[in-house]
Amino acid sequence: NALRKCASAQKSVVIVSPRPHFLYTPLLASSSVGTITLRSACEPLRALVESAASKATSATFVRADAREIDVHNKKVYATTDSDGMGLELSYDKLVIAVGAQPNTFGIPGVQEHGLFLKEAEDSAKLHAKLLSNLEKAAALSHQGNKYATEIDRLLKVVVVGGGPTGVELCAELADFKNHDVVKRYGTDISDRIQIILVEAMPRILMPFDESLANVAKEHLVSKGVEVRTGCGVTYVEGQDVTMQPSTPRTATAEQKAEAASKAKSEEVGALVWVAGIGARPLVKKLAKQLGQTDMRGLKVDETLKVEGTNDVYAIGDCAL
Amino acid sequence: NALRKCASAQKSVVIVSPRPHFLYTPLLASSSVGTITLRSACEPLRALVESAASKATSATFVRADAREIDVHNKKVYATTDSDGMGLELSYDKLVIAVGAQPNTFGIPGVQEHGLFLKEAEDSAKLHAKLLSNLEKAAALSHQGNKYATEIDRLLKVVVVGGGPTGVELCAELADFKNHDVVKRYGTDISDRIQIILVEAMPRILMPFDESLANVAKEHLVSKGVEVRTGCGVTYVEGQDVTMQPSTPRTATAEQKAEAASKAKSEEVGALVWVAGIGARPLVKKLAKQLGQTDMRGLKVDETLKVEGTNDVYAIGDCAL
Repeated sequence: NALRKCASAQKSVVIVSPRPHFLYTPLLASSSVGTITLRSACEPLRALVESAASKATSATFVRADAREIDVHNKKVYATTDSDGMGLELSYDKLVIAVGAQPNTFGIPGVQEHGLFLKEAEDSAKLHAKLLSNLEKAAALSHQGNKYATEIDRLLKVVVVGGGPTGVELCAELADFKNHDVVKRYGTDISDRIQIILVEAMPRILMPFDESLANVAKEHLVSKGVEVRTGCGVTYVEGQDVTMQPSTPRTATAEQKAEAASKAKSEEVGALVWVAGIGARPLVKKLAKQLGQTDMRGLKVDETLKVEGTNDVYAIGDCAL
Repeated sequence: NALRKCASAQKSVVIVSPRPHFLYTPLLASSSVGTITLRSACEPLRALVESAASKATSATFVRADAREIDVHNKKVYATTDSDGMGLELSYDKLVIAVGAQPNTFGIPGVQEHGLFLKEAEDSAKLHAKLLSNLEKAAALSHQGNKYATEIDRLLKVVVVGGGPTGVELCAELADFKNHDVVKRYGTDISDRIQIILVEAMPRILMPFDESLANVAKEHLVSKGVEVRTGCGVTYVEGQDVTMQPSTPRTATAEQKAEAASKAKSEEVGALVWVAGIGARPLVKKLAKQLGQTDMRGLKVDETLKVEGTNDVYAIGDCAL
């Protein structure tokens, strides 16, 4: 839509994105359990650009990863992919709409062993992991009790982050367990699936009204989801997830030590990390160059212009 | 269908497969250019088994990779995945229907750098590669002539193997070039796409009638496919493919040396290997154990019973 509006004047619009599609992220939770196809959450950018381009305007799509912005010379430096060729693109006006990326807060092992829900591939990976674990558990159940511990591990899903994404995902997982899995794998398997929602804050959906959070929590619990609040993940090593009671930033050394003494680790089949978002490297780099102090995004004025620049605007999750 | 027929008696049927779907391989060529979705070529095994199981029979699906067959003790040893748990499955009657796998004839680099068209993932990979190359070429074309050589490399597709799969794939690629690519990327890009079919024999579709092969060849050429017969790939290193005139097995040392002196290498965007099939390790292992001499598959009698066994049958590409 924005593209169509720009396109009504005599302009040349260039869309630069490393993804060939526009992704509607709220649908990722559904696609990760197979309720909708991933395709439904992706709108191909090339076709979109094509249909939005009018005769008066040229609109083109460049599949490339913007790496650096030179606000003085009005240039964007991009590469065609991670080890690709360099591109230099000039602009008159620049709109930065790169969104955000998962933030693991530096907790060891999360990046390597966790699953995420931010990109289309994340959802496909989570879906594949869930199905693969189910098939393995079903296959192992043909050998009697020999693999009971492994079956329980395979069927334990931990979702870290009690925000809207985590809550939505747990609800989808619960539906998946109670319907699809019952139908396809039988109750022997579905009954053994454990879904655990982990939130470091004292309650889920912290930015929302408490009454709303309570309704959501009761709903999840009624569907068989275990909700662990005030609980933080401190360490992940392969299938092994270590958790302990979370402490506020103001906690004393004794309080922290006491929390640490309660640390427990458990083996899980899947760890999904939806606990926070942070700025993308491009955004951090530009914020730093502009002398901005908040590295969570780009500070903009009331017209969405990035402070300290001319003709550069930021919208969405990358704007503060 | 076979399952439904078995299921009409009081039997218990267990299907063992590492893939969760039945794959209709002839559709892979179409799905690799996006004409049909990969989903259309895959029939989910679990649902199939479920619908075929009647009240009189139990049919179950076990997602596992059969690794070894003990025909004396009537057992199949399988693992849940490549580094998975071991399963031991007993049988009264065993049907081996594992198909075949690509055969690279030991040509260096093909396994590592080539793309194939035998499994669902192969088709998805080829599709992703084609689109990624197109997007890169389109992005690079925004920098004038700076990247002309790289654009031509990205848009060069070599298909090795002039059998039905190779011919079908080249026809699909030509349609993709002449329709989808023209529409989405414009003629500047589509005109630069090169599709090359390489066949070691003097003509394509060798097992078929020569008149049929000629019609197919003319059709491909008319669509812009370059057909190189009597040409063999000898070496692949990254994007670099080396080819030379092929020599018959009876060629003299001089003839071989002359062919080798004509070797040329070229950089390609994609190398698709559809030049031959061979037996899967499970089949080779069993054939060897049974003292069979032809390692291309399992020798069966007129009832499809594997020679030298009781109650073991082989069907499809794994039977000779």
